[in-house]
Amino acid sequence: MRIVLDAMGGDHAPRVVVEGGIMAVREYGIEVVLVGPRPLVEAELARHDTAGLSLSVVHASQVIEMTDEPSMAARQKKDSSMVIGMNLVKNGEADAFTTAGNSGGALAAALFHLGRIEGIKRPALSTIFPTRKGFCFISDIGANTDCKPDYLLQFGIMGSVYAERVLGIPNPRVGLLSNGEEEGKGSILVKEAFKLLQNSHLNFIGNVEGKDIPAGLADVVVTDGFSGNVVIKLAEGVAALLMEVMEEEIKKRPTAVLGALLARDALRAVKSRLDYSEYGGAPLLGVDGVVIVGHGRSNARAIKNMVRVAREAVEKGMLAAIQEGIAERV
Amino acid sequence: MRIVLDAMGGDHAPRVVVEGGIMAVREYGIEVVLVGPRPLVEAELARHDTAGLSLSVVHASQVIEMTDEPSMAARQKKDSSMVIGMNLVKNGEADAFTTAGNSGGALAAALFHLGRIEGIKRPALSTIFPTRKGFCFISDIGANTDCKPDYLLQFGIMGSVYAERVLGIPNPRVGLLSNGEEEGKGSILVKEAFKLLQNSHLNFIGNVEGKDIPAGLADVVVTDGFSGNVVIKLAEGVAALLMEVMEEEIKKRPTAVLGALLARDALRAVKSRLDYSEYGGAPLLGVDGVVIVGHGRSNARAIKNMVRVAREAVEKGMLAAIQEGIAERV
Repeated sequence: MRIVLDAMGGDHAPRVVVEGGIMAVREYGIEVVLVGPRPLVEAELARHDTAGLSLSVVHASQVIEMTDEPSMAARQKKDSSMVIGMNLVKNGEADAFTTAGNSGGALAAALFHLGRIEGIKRPALSTIFPTRKGFCFISDIGANTDCKPDYLLQFGIMGSVYAERVLGIPNPRVGLLSNGEEEGKGSILVKEAFKLLQNSHLNFIGNVEGKDIPAGLADVVVTDGFSGNVVIKLAEGVAALLMEVMEEEIKKRPTAVLGALLARDALRAVKSRLDYSEYGGAPLLGVDGVVIVGHGRSNARAIKNMVRVAREAVEKGMLAAIQEGIAERV
Repeated sequence: MRIVLDAMGGDHAPRVVVEGGIMAVREYGIEVVLVGPRPLVEAELARHDTAGLSLSVVHASQVIEMTDEPSMAARQKKDSSMVIGMNLVKNGEADAFTTAGNSGGALAAALFHLGRIEGIKRPALSTIFPTRKGFCFISDIGANTDCKPDYLLQFGIMGSVYAERVLGIPNPRVGLLSNGEEEGKGSILVKEAFKLLQNSHLNFIGNVEGKDIPAGLADVVVTDGFSGNVVIKLAEGVAALLMEVMEEEIKKRPTAVLGALLARDALRAVKSRLDYSEYGGAPLLGVDGVVIVGHGRSNARAIKNMVRVAREAVEKGMLAAIQEGIAERV
C-alpha cells in the first residue's frame, strides 16, 4: 500500500512530518510518498537512516498555507503538495492522501481534484473527540456552515460507516446535536434531520445535548459545520482555561506546587487521554478518495498515527462502504 | 426595595431558597417576599431567627416544575409561585422577581404575565460564563432556537446595557459567535447579524470563535439560542470530563493522591473561580420587569447573590436603559 504524506502540512513541517513518515514506514510495513519541495524534504530525510525503507519523494514547489483562502488556493496552487499529492491518488499511483495542513484547503483540493462519491451532496470535515468512554466522532466540524436536513443524514451515514469500519465500533450510536434531548427540541434544521435519521437504517439514538458529547452518549455526533466548529473550539478553550487557572492557583501556594509535582504522572496521563491529536487524524468524508487530515499541532507520533488511520481506511474499504451506505438511501 | 423570591425554585427548594433569602435581607437591607405554599415556606422560616427582618410570605399553591412544558405551565398554573410572583411585579407591589427554577417556565410566565419591553422582538435567556479574565455574558442560551438577524442585534444591545449598567463593565466589547474570526465567516444568519451589529452604536469587536469565549475576548457574546445552549452545556460537560478523568488518574497513583491532598486548596480555588453559579443569576432580557433566573443547583449563597443581582438591576435602571438602547435603533 502506498500512502501519500503532505510533507509541508502542519505547524512543525517538514521536520516532524518526515520523522513521522519514517516511523510509519518502519511500523506499518507500507510505502510512504513524501510530497513537497524536494531539496527541503531530502534535507530532512538526510537526518535519518532510511536505508532499505519504502520511502519516496515527489516534488511539489508550492504549499497551501494555513492563511490561504481554501478554494482559491486549491485552484491556483496547482504545484502545491496537496494538489500534487491528491492527483497521485486520483491517478491510481497511491491509495490515500494524508496531511496535517490547512483542513479547508485539503477539502477544497479534494473536491476540485478527487470529486465527490456518487450521491454525496456535501463532503464533511470530521474529528475524533475525547469522551468519558474513550472517544466519539463528530461530523461536520466546519466544511458546511449552512446545512440542509439531508446533508445531516448523509453525515450520519458516513460517520456511522467510518466508526464501524475504521474505528471498529460495532453498531455505532448516532446522535444529533440539539439544544435539548427530547424529540421535538431543536432548530428547524435539526427537527427535519431528526425525522430523516429516525427513518434511516442507522442506530439513531435521537438528540444529544452539548454535555452528552464528552459524556460519551453517542459514537457519532451529527451536526452542521457551524455548531460543530463551535463545539471543537469551545472544548479546546474550556480545557485550556481550566489548565491555566489550575496552574495559576497552584503557583500561588508552595504546598500545592509540591502536590502538583507528586501528581505529575497523573496529570500527564490526563493530558494524553484527552488529547485527540493522538488519534492521528480524521477523514474527509464524502470525497472520492481516502483523505485523512491531522491536527496542525501534530508531533511525529501523531503524523505516524495519521498514516495508520489512512492505512486502516484503505484496508477496511471505507470508500466502498460509504458508497453502499448512501446507495441504500437513494 | 421589595424583591420577590420564588421559594419553590431550584433543586434544593424551599430549604436553601429560604435560607438564601434570609441572608439577602440581612446583608442588603431590602425586603424579600417569599412566594410558595405558605405552610411549607413558614416551616422553613421557623428554622431561623427572623425577628425584625423584612420578610413576608405570599401564598401560591402550585409549582412550575423542571419537567413542565414551559408555555403550557405558564398559562395553566395560574396559582404557581412564578405566576403569582411575577404578578406582584406587574402590579407594582414588588420591584423584581427572582427564581432558581425552570428557566423556560420563567421566560414563558414573564412573556405571558409581564410582556415585552416596547420594541423588543424576542426576549433572551442569558448567563454569566467564566473566562480567563473573570467572566462574560452570553445571550441567548436557549429561548430562541431559530433567530433572525435583528434578534441578534437586540441581544447585543440588551447584553451591552446589562454588562455596562449592572455588571459595571465600561464600554463592553460585544462579540458575535461564529465559526471563524474573520469578517465574512459564519452562517447566513451570522453574516447578516454582523452587518447590523457593525452599524450599531455598540462596541462591536466582530466575530468570536468558541475558544475566544473562555479566553475572555468579549464581554458580551451574542448568539442564537441553539448555539448558546450547546456552548453552555458543552462547557459544563468538558469541565466535568476533565475533573473525572483527573480524579481517576490520581486515584490510580498513591503519590498523586498525596499530591492532590497537598493541592486541595488550589483545586478548591479553581472550582470557585470557574463556578458561574456563584454570580447568582442572569436576567431575562427584554421582558417588561426585572426577572433574574439563577442556576437550578444554587446553594443558599447563590440564592443570596441572585437577589443581589436583582437589586442591582433595579437600582441601576436596567429596564429604562434597555428601552433607551432599543429606541435609539428604531
